[in-house]
Amino acid sequence: MTYKIAILGASGYTGAELVRLIAGHPQMEIAALAANSKAGKTMAEVYPHLRHLDLPTLVTIDEIDFAGIDLVFCALPHKTSQEVIKGLPRDLKIIDLSADFRLRDPADYEKWYGNPHAAVERQADSVYGLTEFYRDQIAGASFVAGTGCNAATGQYALRPLIEKGLIDLDDIAIDLKAGVSGAGRALKEILLHAELSEGLHPYSVGGTHRHLGEFDQEFSAIAGRDVRVQFTPHLVPVNRGILVTVYVKGDPEAIHGALRDAYADEPFLVVLPFGEQPDMRHTRGSNFCHVGVVGDRIAGRAVVFAALDNLCKGSSGQALQNANLMLGLDETTGLMGVPLYP
Amino acid sequence: MTYKIAILGASGYTGAELVRLIAGHPQMEIAALAANSKAGKTMAEVYPHLRHLDLPTLVTIDEIDFAGIDLVFCALPHKTSQEVIKGLPRDLKIIDLSADFRLRDPADYEKWYGNPHAAVERQADSVYGLTEFYRDQIAGASFVAGTGCNAATGQYALRPLIEKGLIDLDDIAIDLKAGVSGAGRALKEILLHAELSEGLHPYSVGGTHRHLGEFDQEFSAIAGRDVRVQFTPHLVPVNRGILVTVYVKGDPEAIHGALRDAYADEPFLVVLPFGEQPDMRHTRGSNFCHVGVVGDRIAGRAVVFAALDNLCKGSSGQALQNANLMLGLDETTGLMGVPLYP
Amino acid sequence: MTYKIAILGASGYTGAELVRLIAGHPQMEIAALAANSKAGKTMAEVYPHLRHLDLPTLVTIDEIDFAGIDLVFCALPHKTSQEVIKGLPRDLKIIDLSADFRLRDPADYEKWYGNPHAAVERQADSVYGLTEFYRDQIAGASFVAGTGCNAATGQYALRPLIEKGLIDLDDIAIDLKAGVSGAGRALKEILLHAELSEGLHPYSVGGTHRHLGEFDQEFSAIAGRDVRVQFTPHLVPVNRGILVTVYVKGDPEAIHGALRDAYADEPFLVVLPFGEQPDMRHTRGSNFCHVGVVGDRIAGRAVVFAALDNLCKGSSGQALQNANLMLGLDETTGLMGVPLYP
Amino acid sequence: MTYKIAILGASGYTGAELVRLIAGHPQMEIAALAANSKAGKTMAEVYPHLRHLDLPTLVTIDEIDFAGIDLVFCALPHKTSQEVIKGLPRDLKIIDLSADFRLRDPADYEKWYGNPHAAVERQADSVYGLTEFYRDQIAGASFVAGTGCNAATGQYALRPLIEKGLIDLDDIAIDLKAGVSGAGRALKEILLHAELSEGLHPYSVGGTHRHLGEFDQEFSAIAGRDVRVQFTPHLVPVNRGILVTVYVKGDPEAIHGALRDAYADEPFLVVLPFGEQPDMRHTRGSNFCHVGVVGDRIAGRAVVFAALDNLCKGSSGQALQNANLMLGLDETTGLMGVPLYP
Repeated sequence: MTYKIAILGASGYTGAELVRLIAGHPQMEIAALAANSKAGKTMAEVYPHLRHLDLPTLVTIDEIDFAGIDLVFCALPHKTSQEVIKGLPRDLKIIDLSADFRLRDPADYEKWYGNPHAAVERQADSVYGLTEFYRDQIAGASFVAGTGCNAATGQYALRPLIEKGLIDLDDIAIDLKAGVSGAGRALKEILLHAELSEGLHPYSVGGTHRHLGEFDQEFSAIAGRDVRVQFTPHLVPVNRGILVTVYVKGDPEAIHGALRDAYADEPFLVVLPFGEQPDMRHTRGSNFCHVGVVGDRIAGRAVVFAALDNLCKGSSGQALQNANLMLGLDETTGLMGVPLYP
Repeated sequence: MTYKIAILGASGYTGAELVRLIAGHPQMEIAALAANSKAGKTMAEVYPHLRHLDLPTLVTIDEIDFAGIDLVFCALPHKTSQEVIKGLPRDLKIIDLSADFRLRDPADYEKWYGNPHAAVERQADSVYGLTEFYRDQIAGASFVAGTGCNAATGQYALRPLIEKGLIDLDDIAIDLKAGVSGAGRALKEILLHAELSEGLHPYSVGGTHRHLGEFDQEFSAIAGRDVRVQFTPHLVPVNRGILVTVYVKGDPEAIHGALRDAYADEPFLVVLPFGEQPDMRHTRGSNFCHVGVVGDRIAGRAVVFAALDNLCKGSSGQALQNANLMLGLDETTGLMGVPLYP
Repeated sequence: MTYKIAILGASGYTGAELVRLIAGHPQMEIAALAANSKAGKTMAEVYPHLRHLDLPTLVTIDEIDFAGIDLVFCALPHKTSQEVIKGLPRDLKIIDLSADFRLRDPADYEKWYGNPHAAVERQADSVYGLTEFYRDQIAGASFVAGTGCNAATGQYALRPLIEKGLIDLDDIAIDLKAGVSGAGRALKEILLHAELSEGLHPYSVGGTHRHLGEFDQEFSAIAGRDVRVQFTPHLVPVNRGILVTVYVKGDPEAIHGALRDAYADEPFLVVLPFGEQPDMRHTRGSNFCHVGVVGDRIAGRAVVFAALDNLCKGSSGQALQNANLMLGLDETTGLMGVPLYP
Repeated sequence: MTYKIAILGASGYTGAELVRLIAGHPQMEIAALAANSKAGKTMAEVYPHLRHLDLPTLVTIDEIDFAGIDLVFCALPHKTSQEVIKGLPRDLKIIDLSADFRLRDPADYEKWYGNPHAAVERQADSVYGLTEFYRDQIAGASFVAGTGCNAATGQYALRPLIEKGLIDLDDIAIDLKAGVSGAGRALKEILLHAELSEGLHPYSVGGTHRHLGEFDQEFSAIAGRDVRVQFTPHLVPVNRGILVTVYVKGDPEAIHGALRDAYADEPFLVVLPFGEQPDMRHTRGSNFCHVGVVGDRIAGRAVVFAALDNLCKGSSGQALQNANLMLGLDETTGLMGVPLYP
């Protein structure tokens, strides 16, 4: 059977990445592509690397007849997403890639995003899309909220450690380095090549980055108490990739063991031998996440690393993995592509 | 049926690219990986991006039992390649990715490469691997010589024009821009990041680049007379990609028509609408080649562009395409991956 | 004596580059910085790399009292520039870095830029700012029009050859590669890091690039007949730098000799030994231009190369060089900074 | 008066950077350039960006007559440096840029570098070259050991805080990001463009990086007790630049105040307003260091940032600043060049 897929917000990077991945999926067919600002254009005009594919012309969301659609990926900006999803049929399978449904508590949403949530009823409804930790719920869900790409990377490094009580919960610092595509195809001065290349800078520091909302929610839920991490994201002149360097207090070998055990059967999570560190370039273009642990010279301290491709495993790849689960397909279908290197 | 594949020279970039592509091929299995200098290591040690794959450990070429191998990719440096291939079983299906068997005339080989050919008998034997123009011969061959990546790109822009007699054969200038992976994983000062980034420089100028041997051989054969082109390669700070800008004298629209017709049924050659130009970044990581034609303000002159990924369509992707033909498989098997962008 | 300088359009890249250069000039002092859209801000806010300098706050152009100003650099966008310059005192020394006063014939201006010129009287007035060829006129002028950065690079490669009648005027192709800062600090999708890195693409091809107006004007004037060159610019993922690869018909050694002679006493033009080629990275951040000539294997053909930093020698450095002349200073004052490498 | 300068190890990046800086220094003249492996070549051959300068040809160290030399910069690899310096006249003014004389204790040297020190007598002799904190000693010294570039950056962020007792000495984590030129012009696979671009990776993690020897020595000396920091360097695809992100426990505003006070009169240290963060790209090519402090959402925690150009302020610029002091010149002579941006 072939499932008919619609992508809303197809003109952004996560939309284009979904098209790339679905083009190689044996049981999905792209039935509709929406991008209000580019409606009427072909995908080849918006993304010439997709030129050889036979794709539907971009339309507005209103033009789509959702009756014929099996699953919708919603790759719209946050805030827009909640407005659109509010109006979609309740029985439609939806995966939202925006930030709108990641936080379960409306107050948390308002705190981090600055506006009251416009679709609170669907917010309650959604399953958090970190596949490895919400697999069963996702398989049974009709509405899944994709995680933040930074939030996913940090959680891959930390969840098993918090769950097992292996680290000091009051002393966690996540130093994150992220490639530029995470900021989207947005016309901002800081994203210009001449501004961004040949440098590296921190942003949203001191506890102001919105993905902290996800860390707070998830880590606190696992720990059964409030957990607050330090988090410093940096923008690096690289197209794709996230690397987290996490400073924790705990036994390095126990930490490594917990990660190795937690991910032993995971198809996309690769734990490196103890003492080795991952590199974001080794996951480029793929759905894999590499995790590593190194013990510090100071006893009782470890550095945990995780690396993944923000557009794929951090966003559109995760979304497709969840879609496979929701449609009853093998979770890895269409996602086993090897990283592109160099 | 699954074909057993050996890759000789698996530790270079074209070797790693073959592994990447074959990992997604439904009817091939990597049975042996050889790299004399890294024998005993795992591929994960040499290329961590392949870490999740279950691959044979690297061995020396001598350790391989070719009896159980259906097809060999030889991704060795030139000169080494001829020595090795000389010793391989004559009935073995071989695709050589080096420069050793591209030139049919031993004198031409010696002129461009500076040493007498050590396997002249096999040189006579080989089929030139530019799939779209040697398809039938390749399908029936047991020994195929992959083209130079620059040579392939230039030929995609020019062969149909020469064939149809549409351009002045005495006035062809190919200005080529190539990404760094074409130079291989070689320890040369000029390939260091600090030396190469933030600049762009010509090399092997004035008619000294060895791929001219292929242009001379192929263009002269098509034209039925000696054809000598001007050729200026430039090295650009980009990992993958080749773009040629070809200055020709002829009618632009006729030129565009000839290219469109020649490639109408080709699965990997995409001719852009008249007046549009390709970009090397839109073919990254894929087996596609984009071709474009623009008319100059000076009547009777055109600029022809072609862009492809040097490691894929220019080398390992071409090799796999040829392997499919030699094994009686659909030519596109394992090669329809969408370019990675951004 | 210290000259008081005003920069109009100080928030663009050429404005910032002027500040960088003038900060090291022993006889100039920045008295006013205007940028209408950023008026009220400090330069440190707009360009943090200038943070340590003691600079005037940005104002609107109207706020400047030109009575106290010895020389104005006008680094505004074209079209805006002519409107502003029209209103400046006639006796003020002005160097315009925009495209507005490069073409002497109002019809040519309108042809290439699409609108009638708003300050025709000043257009007639201006001296073309290619220092090495208009030195005496510049020294005596009060109004100088900076050249296009691409136009400057091409002219450094070709002017002496045309002047001496050494090349076929009907067969000149300029293949140009330019870094991104030439496009300015403009919010265009194509200038985003994620769009621009890891690729290279042609633009304004087939005789449509506006700098052709300068080539036509200058080369025809030298030759005493109409000269039309082919010109294909390409955008490369590099911050600063232009390299031209020029295909000409003529005797390579004679060509090299003519360039060597023409630039023998020039402080900023460096002609490489015959057969060597320049690299844009070797002029980065400096006012130097490297020129090279290689003979082709086809007799009677040569490839001429020129490389410079588009923001410095191609624009703001040239402007300062001209300012030195106009103020009676040594032409090289403040401009001998060594290229930054790597 | 003009001082005659010799540079030993002129073919490395720090050697070339010294040439660049000294070329603009009004009271220094390069009298000798040594590079044993490239002796006989011109600097133009080794570094074409220096082509326009009139420089002595490269010689071996033995060929230099030190009698006519006022000051020597020793830019040799570590271990080689101690062998060479051992043989230099004792009364010669020397600035060593290698790692050989940074650690005062021979046991520390052996621990971090793995071999016994070959010039222990001179080791005792040397002054640690962190100008702002050893100014008086440097001014009176004849032998100064330049600091590690990473070590300098970390110390600029932390020394005033340790001195004033403002932070918890048992909880300091330095997450460092460094551009590639810090690794020198070395033929290592990991430094190739194709390997390094489009990624970012940690190295020498867990307390193994040799610059920790400097942190241990200096921080312990200031604190009057053993101080051990965590330190994780990362290599980023950028030519020049270091950024440290330092996680500390202490009052953010007090920390900012201490840094502001400590650097109030420093010509090259710029403390940003509270809550702002520096960017390595804003110090490129200059001798400036930008320092910033941000308070975390967790009370009593701060993140301190420092950014500088590893080749300039982190190495050759620091060396020249020290040379100025040793020669009785104004410390800033030849060092006020504005950062190159973009």
